[in-house]
Amino acid sequence: MEFGWEQILGLVAGICTTIAVIPQIHRSYKTKKVNDVSPGMFSILLLGVLLWVVYGFTQNDLPIIATNGISLGLNSFMLYLMLKYGKN
Amino acid sequence: MEFGWEQILGLVAGICTTIAVIPQIHRSYKTKKVNDVSPGMFSILLLGVLLWVVYGFTQNDLPIIATNGISLGLNSFMLYLMLKYGKN
Repeated sequence: MEFGWEQILGLVAGICTTIAVIPQIHRSYKTKKVNDVSPGMFSILLLGVLLWVVYGFTQNDLPIIATNGISLGLNSFMLYLMLKYGKN
Repeated sequence: MEFGWEQILGLVAGICTTIAVIPQIHRSYKTKKVNDVSPGMFSILLLGVLLWVVYGFTQNDLPIIATNGISLGLNSFMLYLMLKYGKN
């Protein structure tokens, strides 16, 4: 596998889509309010990244397993905050 | 390229992570409230999927281009709703 600017591009893309939820976690943790956040979004997202992790294992693809494994942890924590602070 | 249950698994995973934002768009559009939603999340997400699309073109990878292209459209619309309804 070559490692050039294209791979760096893909890596930065993966880092962005993986860490994007962190500002949302920070906001929800700080304000303790999640009324405008959709539980459906994080439920579907969690199912999606879980399936990505399983898919990654079937393909022995470490980048897919690693990035989606981190997403799985972050999104699980976000869903926990939603259950903790949510009224509906 | 073979097409078996593993590919279907990857496809379902991709559909989930692509459409997850739709319930959030629906909620924000309906309530016109986005106070608890993080602009940082959708900004980083938008940058990420944009970079994924560019990466997809460098690899001539249609699934990456297609799924992230749809995400780009959906997340752009969500960010538009945030600018429209957001107070901060």
